Amino acid sequence: MQNNIIYKKIAIVGAGSMGTMMSQLFAEADLDVSIFDVKGENVDIAIELARENPKVRGKIHGFKEYGPFVGSLGDEGGRLFLLSITHGWPADNVLNEIGKYLKPGDIVLDGGNEFYLESGDPDALDKVMPLLETVAAKDGNGRPCVRKMGPDGAGHYVKMVHNGIEQGMMSALCEAWGLLRYNMDLEMDEIGQIFSQWDRKGELRDNFLCDIGADISCRRPASDKRKYVLDEVMDKVVQDDDDSEGTGIWTVMEAARNHIAAPTIASGHFFRVASGSRAERLSVRRNLALSPASGVTVEDKAAFIEDLRLALYATFLASYVQGMNLISRQSHAAKWGTKLTDCLAVWRAGCIITSDDIIDRLQPIAEAKEGDIANLLEDPSIGKEFLRTYGPLKRVVAKAVEWDAYAPSVSATLEWVKYCGGEVLPTQFMEAELDYFGAHQYDKWGEEPGKAMTGKHHYEWKPA
Amino acid sequence: MQNNIIYKKIAIVGAGSMGTMMSQLFAEADLDVSIFDVKGENVDIAIELARENPKVRGKIHGFKEYGPFVGSLGDEGGRLFLLSITHGWPADNVLNEIGKYLKPGDIVLDGGNEFYLESGDPDALDKVMPLLETVAAKDGNGRPCVRKMGPDGAGHYVKMVHNGIEQGMMSALCEAWGLLRYNMDLEMDEIGQIFSQWDRKGELRDNFLCDIGADISCRRPASDKRKYVLDEVMDKVVQDDDDSEGTGIWTVMEAARNHIAAPTIASGHFFRVASGSRAERLSVRRNLALSPASGVTVEDKAAFIEDLRLALYATFLASYVQGMNLISRQSHAAKWGTKLTDCLAVWRAGCIITSDDIIDRLQPIAEAKEGDIANLLEDPSIGKEFLRTYGPLKRVVAKAVEWDAYAPSVSATLEWVKYCGGEVLPTQFMEAELDYFGAHQYDKWGEEPGKAMTGKHHYEWKPA
Repeated sequence: MQNNIIYKKIAIVGAGSMGTMMSQLFAEADLDVSIFDVKGENVDIAIELARENPKVRGKIHGFKEYGPFVGSLGDEGGRLFLLSITHGWPADNVLNEIGKYLKPGDIVLDGGNEFYLESGDPDALDKVMPLLETVAAKDGNGRPCVRKMGPDGAGHYVKMVHNGIEQGMMSALCEAWGLLRYNMDLEMDEIGQIFSQWDRKGELRDNFLCDIGADISCRRPASDKRKYVLDEVMDKVVQDDDDSEGTGIWTVMEAARNHIAAPTIASGHFFRVASGSRAERLSVRRNLALSPASGVTVEDKAAFIEDLRLALYATFLASYVQGMNLISRQSHAAKWGTKLTDCLAVWRAGCIITSDDIIDRLQPIAEAKEGDIANLLEDPSIGKEFLRTYGPLKRVVAKAVEWDAYAPSVSATLEWVKYCGGEVLPTQFMEAELDYFGAHQYDKWGEEPGKAMTGKHHYEWKPA
Repeated sequence: MQNNIIYKKIAIVGAGSMGTMMSQLFAEADLDVSIFDVKGENVDIAIELARENPKVRGKIHGFKEYGPFVGSLGDEGGRLFLLSITHGWPADNVLNEIGKYLKPGDIVLDGGNEFYLESGDPDALDKVMPLLETVAAKDGNGRPCVRKMGPDGAGHYVKMVHNGIEQGMMSALCEAWGLLRYNMDLEMDEIGQIFSQWDRKGELRDNFLCDIGADISCRRPASDKRKYVLDEVMDKVVQDDDDSEGTGIWTVMEAARNHIAAPTIASGHFFRVASGSRAERLSVRRNLALSPASGVTVEDKAAFIEDLRLALYATFLASYVQGMNLISRQSHAAKWGTKLTDCLAVWRAGCIITSDDIIDRLQPIAEAKEGDIANLLEDPSIGKEFLRTYGPLKRVVAKAVEWDAYAPSVSATLEWVKYCGGEVLPTQFMEAELDYFGAHQYDKWGEEPGKAMTGKHHYEWKPA
């Protein structure tokens, strides 16, 4: 693949943690890297890292002015730029600045999270794909985890949904952690061992979040080995609430817009929003002071922890299914032709939602459904997974309710599992009320369910 | 007020149920009404209704062509048009057609649900306000339930959120109905009596949805008095899933965009989406067949029904608080100056979320907070309401879990109540994971909670 790489140089705007990391990868691939940041010290760190990195083959040059930065790639068009900065006005600003120096054939890749409608030319991607394949993370078989997802920002859409799935999964894992830590009063090291075991085999095998969660749980600061790093971390998650990253917000918006029931992802998102407003929570708490019950006991601790593992698996799988249903619906509506198999292939390595056992299960289903508008829940093997984990999921939610524990995503998943295959939902009462006050019309039992369209019958509830 | 009405005629496009009803109201206010619909029979119904309506004083004329329709208001500008049609391309089409005949000073009111960014001139509203005050529903003191909410589509925004609140409330009520009907096997008439009692006094006093719910529960078709109308209504709610009405979708999207935790509303919305896709549910059901436990018993039936009443109240109140927090945040961001007291005043009568006891409680708080960015949960009296109803809410959710009942909005409310005043959320684990894989940085316990901004500390979890 490397033979097809037509670039010898790349210019990166943004030397934050992502931009710096990418500068190393490109330099390892023998490209000369020009890196720009308004903060000079960020550029210095990137250069210092490259100096200490034995795998680096290309050179890294730092810049603090746009003219020399662009010129460092030569004076002819066909140059390659990569942005790794915050979406919105910061990205627009940079585009304006380097735009003054651009020539026909130059390519600017937006390597940050960006709203999918703000996206560019699909042909450009073909030119840089060999390079991206070289620097991308590789799956267990050495295949690069990068694909062309489609035209018109399809790639940004898939990354957006990745982050939405991530929100559902991260919420579920921290809810499980809270049950173990604050309700059952387990020691940090024990929780670390549990996560480590979960990550090793079964449904949560090679799950990135469990893997690093095990590491985090046991980590003690070098300065004081009697403490845990985790103990000092405040519960205030502001990512996606400070407008620096829109992906979690956008996923909830897109699920609503596309008529996809995504309560696991949305519940995780709202939980995160509330966590970020810590000052507001403390103010609410003055009159609404609820706390998880601590020191609870269960009859069979090992059995409950196994229930928790399977409830977590169900919530992870629900996050995947809701996110993939969204991609499928959007791809069909926009005629993108995005392949769910490609999404799964990309999520195999180098990303946050990597979860090998789950992807192994989804891969054949995605293959079989390719081209259809997929509700993955309709697949027998996925339906059966949720049936199999229903008991554990139910028992965990029951305990969370009993113990006043926080379980927004896990409990939202339980509700979703119940109603997605429900034969008789109480929404018949809602439908009757809509017909009562709005002459909304309804279908009758026994009629074909058909598409989601207004029914044929109206009852004159309020005769004139 | 009527003295200030400068209009003698109005032209309405759309003779659906809303347009027809409005034609009657304007004719009762002594205006001559021209009404247009592409379906001639709709126009005929409106005219027939007016003929049978003894309160009508003005004349109603039907039209099927735009030229004569517009001309019926005279040839000079300053005419008044009202659209009561589906938002999006249908509304755009009509605007294009009548646009050909419009003159300076003509006013076109969009009386349908419309996305707030598609809205018009605030000065026009001042001209028609006296007329709207005449035809609007009146509260218990005879005051018209209409207000100017602000510029730039603020009124459409408030109506949008009204419908979002409605989704949370309607979901909660049908969940309560499902528990009574399908789990506890209560007779229709008994449920009707329960709803009727709830509507009569206490926290659910004069709640429109309970009121009509009581009526619906007992209603038997004239053709067969042994049956109930409700028994024949299918559980497939497609409103807001068929793209004819966007308000529920938009509320979820706006809550996400504005960083408002609105899980009660979102859960109700997703439940509705799943209900609408009945064919898909039956397909999922082949492998995931879960059903509510029927014929359950409770130790003290009256006590459980009282718990259910208070859980419903908590969920209704949560819908209101989430919706009003959203209006407050948006009004501040857009500098609209929308008053929450005005919202409550408008919701007093003639709308779906009318709930007198709840509005009585919220009114003084809205007055006190006017002008602030309000999180109504921070108000002591509201916080205490959720504390007082926490036990009932928790017991109802516990039973819903035990009985495999559907309770998405009610259970989402329980989680929201828990975390909104949470002092130590398990999101500290999420924050640590974000810092681990993304160098996201965190605050430490004991530091000022401050605003929702990125923390100051990073731990080097993976030393080079």
